[in-house]
Amino acid sequence: MAETAVSTVFIPRDPGWEKRCRDSFAGQQFMTLVGAEIVAISPGHCTVAIRMKGELTQQRGFLHGGVTAALADTAAGFAAYSLMPAGSSPLTVEFKINLIAPAAGDRFIASANVVRSGRILTIVEADVSAQTKGETKTVAKMLATLICMENTSDRAAPASGRGEV
Amino acid sequence: MAETAVSTVFIPRDPGWEKRCRDSFAGQQFMTLVGAEIVAISPGHCTVAIRMKGELTQQRGFLHGGVTAALADTAAGFAAYSLMPAGSSPLTVEFKINLIAPAAGDRFIASANVVRSGRILTIVEADVSAQTKGETKTVAKMLATLICMENTSDRAAPASGRGEV
Amino acid sequence: MAETAVSTVFIPRDPGWEKRCRDSFAGQQFMTLVGAEIVAISPGHCTVAIRMKGELTQQRGFLHGGVTAALADTAAGFAAYSLMPAGSSPLTVEFKINLIAPAAGDRFIASANVVRSGRILTIVEADVSAQTKGETKTVAKMLATLICMENTSDRAAPASGRGEV
Amino acid sequence: MAETAVSTVFIPRDPGWEKRCRDSFAGQQFMTLVGAEIVAISPGHCTVAIRMKGELTQQRGFLHGGVTAALADTAAGFAAYSLMPAGSSPLTVEFKINLIAPAAGDRFIASANVVRSGRILTIVEADVSAQTKGETKTVAKMLATLICMENTSDRAAPASGRGEV
Repeated sequence: MAETAVSTVFIPRDPGWEKRCRDSFAGQQFMTLVGAEIVAISPGHCTVAIRMKGELTQQRGFLHGGVTAALADTAAGFAAYSLMPAGSSPLTVEFKINLIAPAAGDRFIASANVVRSGRILTIVEADVSAQTKGETKTVAKMLATLICMENTSDRAAPASGRGEV
Repeated sequence: MAETAVSTVFIPRDPGWEKRCRDSFAGQQFMTLVGAEIVAISPGHCTVAIRMKGELTQQRGFLHGGVTAALADTAAGFAAYSLMPAGSSPLTVEFKINLIAPAAGDRFIASANVVRSGRILTIVEADVSAQTKGETKTVAKMLATLICMENTSDRAAPASGRGEV
Repeated sequence: MAETAVSTVFIPRDPGWEKRCRDSFAGQQFMTLVGAEIVAISPGHCTVAIRMKGELTQQRGFLHGGVTAALADTAAGFAAYSLMPAGSSPLTVEFKINLIAPAAGDRFIASANVVRSGRILTIVEADVSAQTKGETKTVAKMLATLICMENTSDRAAPASGRGEV
Repeated sequence: MAETAVSTVFIPRDPGWEKRCRDSFAGQQFMTLVGAEIVAISPGHCTVAIRMKGELTQQRGFLHGGVTAALADTAAGFAAYSLMPAGSSPLTVEFKINLIAPAAGDRFIASANVVRSGRILTIVEADVSAQTKGETKTVAKMLATLICMENTSDRAAPASGRGEV
């Protein structure tokens, strides 16, 4: 793919963006379940990784497509959230993912980059790569839309019902 | 949109479709990890469900979007696989999911219906609903494309490399 | 999947929704170019149709996939817009379309139904069918996300720059 | 967006790929209708452009989203087709497009790059940019899946029925 790489420099709206993102990630129990960790995070960018293990597989021994999607969705969410204002919470509106190669490997890395950061909506691209003995290949591509919920706590309180847009 | 679905009657190509699907589902260790089970399966249709538990949540206590997607993707996969010939294996090419309401509930049900069953490609629609004390609401909609890998074992052997299309 | 659609009854927020939608459609010069017309519109639903003609084809003589998408996108847009308040304008955030059969036929009908109508976002499903001598078959399925731009004129004024979200 | 641009070099399977693509594009009457032209084409890449004109607009005077999608879909199709073998024809299976900014401008350029070229399926990314007095901004992002129809004429013969996959 020929590309002219122009690194967009994003200015975070909240100086406390990093702590807020890391705290939020730590609050995602599902990420703990699959063993995911944030490898890198900067304004508009986030990389999340997991190690392969049997309990994450589908019937043929590849990483389950749902895990691939969850990883990319999470990286996309924090890339977006890093640019949102204090006192807000991100919500994935939708995403589309192409699983372009069988997800075989020792480690999977989802890398997400904000394409457009609006007041309400954020558009993010994410790739998932599989690493096997130093070799890396792209196994999935995602294009996602997130919404910024202003004046919404990013803490557990599903009963509050805030979440409708 | 409330809909009364009148099921298209699909004729399975393989009389042993049901055992093959149930065996394949049993081989998905990730479905075991999240506690999913097949609620119903018939040619071109599949319903998969999970009970809510803390380890499946995101930071606000809702079901993680990646789990919602994994559930819908799995239901879609088996709806498609039920119509594929013996000796084949299904592969998700891509899917798009809209998370249309916060995934709060006690139980989540993904219901998938084949829209078009071709020799190579199968198109599937899936909904995810949340149940809370008898009330049900739709939390996600998926539109997915799967490919039939003919002459491919549906058993664990990622080293074989069959999986490129 | 053959379906008998039982329409959700949506209550329009604006009593003048129908005139507003029809005026807006009339203002879409591209719909005039392709010869599209609104066949039916009600709150949350819209059907748009075109007659086949040579200038709408791709290289093999089928309806160009871009026209199929434009038709479905337009039907989706007006299904959504019918439920938006007075003084607003709809914007397509994104859509995904599966072209599930070659678009051969005399007439093409895009039928869109709102799945979820929120204050900010509206989710819409749309089908495109091809009619040939009384026979009808589904050629495409769309799942789309639209945003409501409040306090925004739905008239031509791109220079105004309102349109960023 | 931070990116490490690595230009993939694709080797065409058919030495006559360029003539075949240009002939096919010339056969797309809908591209003639909207005034589109191929700006650049190389193996795995294609750029298509149009000039803005009133008849391509939606009600607010922006380029109609359906035209934006048609342009990106066409660029994606020829990026994919450039790598397909002689005697084949491309078919768009599905695409997803995010309309990330209002399509205001004098000229619109869709640029498509193959992400993965398989024997059966090709995955393509495409961007659409708007140019106004030398300024360029991205207005849309697409992620598309195409299928290679082998032993299929890429000429007009919809009656032949080849097109089912």
